[in-house]
Amino acid sequence: MWARMDQAANGSRQSGTGKGPSTRFGYRLLSQSGHARLGEITTPHGQIRTPAFMPVGTVATVKALYLDQVKAAGADIILGNTYHLMLRPTAERVARLGGLHAFMRWDGPILTDSGGFQVMSLSKIRKITEDGATFQSHIDGSRHFLSPERSIEIQCLLGADIQMQLDECIELPAAPREVERAMELSLRWAERSKAAFDRMAAPGQALFAIVQGGVDPAMRRRSAEALVAMDLPGYAVGGLAVGEGHEAMLTTLEATLPALPATRPRYLMGVGTPLDLIESVARGIDMFDCVMPTRNGRHGYAFTWDGPLNMRNARHAEDIRPIDPESACPAARDYSRAYIHHLVRSGEYLGAMLLSWVNTAFYQDLMAAMRKAIAENRFPAWAEETKARLKTTRA
Amino acid sequence: MWARMDQAANGSRQSGTGKGPSTRFGYRLLSQSGHARLGEITTPHGQIRTPAFMPVGTVATVKALYLDQVKAAGADIILGNTYHLMLRPTAERVARLGGLHAFMRWDGPILTDSGGFQVMSLSKIRKITEDGATFQSHIDGSRHFLSPERSIEIQCLLGADIQMQLDECIELPAAPREVERAMELSLRWAERSKAAFDRMAAPGQALFAIVQGGVDPAMRRRSAEALVAMDLPGYAVGGLAVGEGHEAMLTTLEATLPALPATRPRYLMGVGTPLDLIESVARGIDMFDCVMPTRNGRHGYAFTWDGPLNMRNARHAEDIRPIDPESACPAARDYSRAYIHHLVRSGEYLGAMLLSWVNTAFYQDLMAAMRKAIAENRFPAWAEETKARLKTTRA
Repeated sequence: MWARMDQAANGSRQSGTGKGPSTRFGYRLLSQSGHARLGEITTPHGQIRTPAFMPVGTVATVKALYLDQVKAAGADIILGNTYHLMLRPTAERVARLGGLHAFMRWDGPILTDSGGFQVMSLSKIRKITEDGATFQSHIDGSRHFLSPERSIEIQCLLGADIQMQLDECIELPAAPREVERAMELSLRWAERSKAAFDRMAAPGQALFAIVQGGVDPAMRRRSAEALVAMDLPGYAVGGLAVGEGHEAMLTTLEATLPALPATRPRYLMGVGTPLDLIESVARGIDMFDCVMPTRNGRHGYAFTWDGPLNMRNARHAEDIRPIDPESACPAARDYSRAYIHHLVRSGEYLGAMLLSWVNTAFYQDLMAAMRKAIAENRFPAWAEETKARLKTTRA
Repeated sequence: MWARMDQAANGSRQSGTGKGPSTRFGYRLLSQSGHARLGEITTPHGQIRTPAFMPVGTVATVKALYLDQVKAAGADIILGNTYHLMLRPTAERVARLGGLHAFMRWDGPILTDSGGFQVMSLSKIRKITEDGATFQSHIDGSRHFLSPERSIEIQCLLGADIQMQLDECIELPAAPREVERAMELSLRWAERSKAAFDRMAAPGQALFAIVQGGVDPAMRRRSAEALVAMDLPGYAVGGLAVGEGHEAMLTTLEATLPALPATRPRYLMGVGTPLDLIESVARGIDMFDCVMPTRNGRHGYAFTWDGPLNMRNARHAEDIRPIDPESACPAARDYSRAYIHHLVRSGEYLGAMLLSWVNTAFYQDLMAAMRKAIAENRFPAWAEETKARLKTTRA
């Protein structure tokens, strides 16, 4: 039955590699334009075209969307959340039901985060020790423990193609000593994550390390160098987009990325706006995830090439134009702004459904445009034009 | 643009009558099995196979569904709510945007109720006089007036194919004198509605009268006879499913329907459960509307041929079976009960989306099965079998 159930979400791009763990994980750098990189990641569940944006499927669903829509929008990979899934429905239950791919009906690659960020952002009561993080569930207050080993065990139970080390995320600004302590702890947790992953993971799955170090260039470099010495298949930049601001984020990327090997994919976690994505790709980032397209969609915002639209705004009330007549996304192309305005004002499901779809498609279109510009070696010019257009100020 | 925008929701069953008001309204009784009637209604926006269930699109959206799904499920006609739409976005705005069909992208027939029921059920502060109903909006407390003439004006602005007279709905039980007063007022409002409709409606549109009279057979008959004397193209039975109970509802139908002409469609308003529908079709009802499929879907319930399922129930947590492997609806056929249980427990949009889809498809499948049983002249036997199956008790 699952074989049939997977067909609906199976895009035509998926190669015949099947779902078995027969493929080795790999990254190929195909071309560069400035520092922007065009590449391809191979996983047990298929290829990922990079730069890639991963829609967030926190609790095994990309909110308010059918996965057919996510796939058709152009997403090669989605993200799942260890923190949420370990609490409900639990990793063990997902494993008994055939793993996360079968459970949620997504046969493409899945990346799972380690839970480190949500322990910081969602759990009011938590205690971090050398061993791991003890925290209370935001759902029912029950007590849980997450160590580097347990995080990897969960991610293996889920069957994630790309797994993330457990790290300690701290809020910025923070005292340098505190940033350093968390960064050093995260390095030791990376070692333990790697050891656990080597014991538990299936062939073809990959573990990514996470560079920490706040906005201190020296600390970021030290973190990157120590992680690179561990020779992992991918590297993430964590602990950004947590209040440090756009410029500090970019400066930190510029300090960090040269320390990472060109032969491995680089993933900027939890980022961001369309401008963030363009600036980060310009500096050499290959992968992103963010709740922004779906969360902003649920809150009535539409991303467009001419900047965001607040669909609650009264000026849309009698505007029969679609959000974007050029879009291939039916939600952007076929529904009037007036109708979407009405749905948003009325708090209707369909408003959230359509705008989440619009935004998910826009983010994928943005990545596709970046990949095309890199392939044609005109990324810097494309980026300047597109940034100017995106900054159009409207309500 | 609207021509293109309408295509997506345009089912293959729609004939080439187009959207213009060129077709005359009509009803054909095709065959009978017992008192159950197979028929076809013709409207300016296409045919309606009866018995028909009309999904409710209260504020110009069938909650949590794409209209493509509603159409594909087999719905020929949907319902819109005068009360809601007059408050937001207002009938005048919908008219400026091209009418309700274009606004919500549904090119099949639309029936609008008159607002009478919602004035009773939604507006806490209201005053009924001979002239009409003054009430406060449930949205912002603003004051509004709905007369028979204004209700028809709104329904014409919306462009409804089938329009309903304004009636006074009362809650049951009520004193006989109060039931009679409201019934008599509704008769006078029917006359005024007809006069307004004759002045304002477009060719091919139809006005239905509403039989009132509580659960008193004599009063129902008096109401029906007075309305039949007005010679309207369709007759509704209103004021039921408001607390009188299943048996009283059926008894009232048995007293009312013989007084209605066989040559006109009969519409039981706001009903009901699958059993209600079968029993009502058995007594000669042709049309229904109810929020139950979508509302119960949002609340975690799935309708099936073997009775309802409460998807919150823990027994579904590791059940990889779909809700109904025989269903043509992807939501019922392709997603595991375990996954839907998880979505419902997690309060995710997709849970409401999938279950609203399951239930909307089930209701349409139920109507199709009834139409088939009537066409094959085996409705009574089919009804007995199906009722027994539907009564299977489970959680």
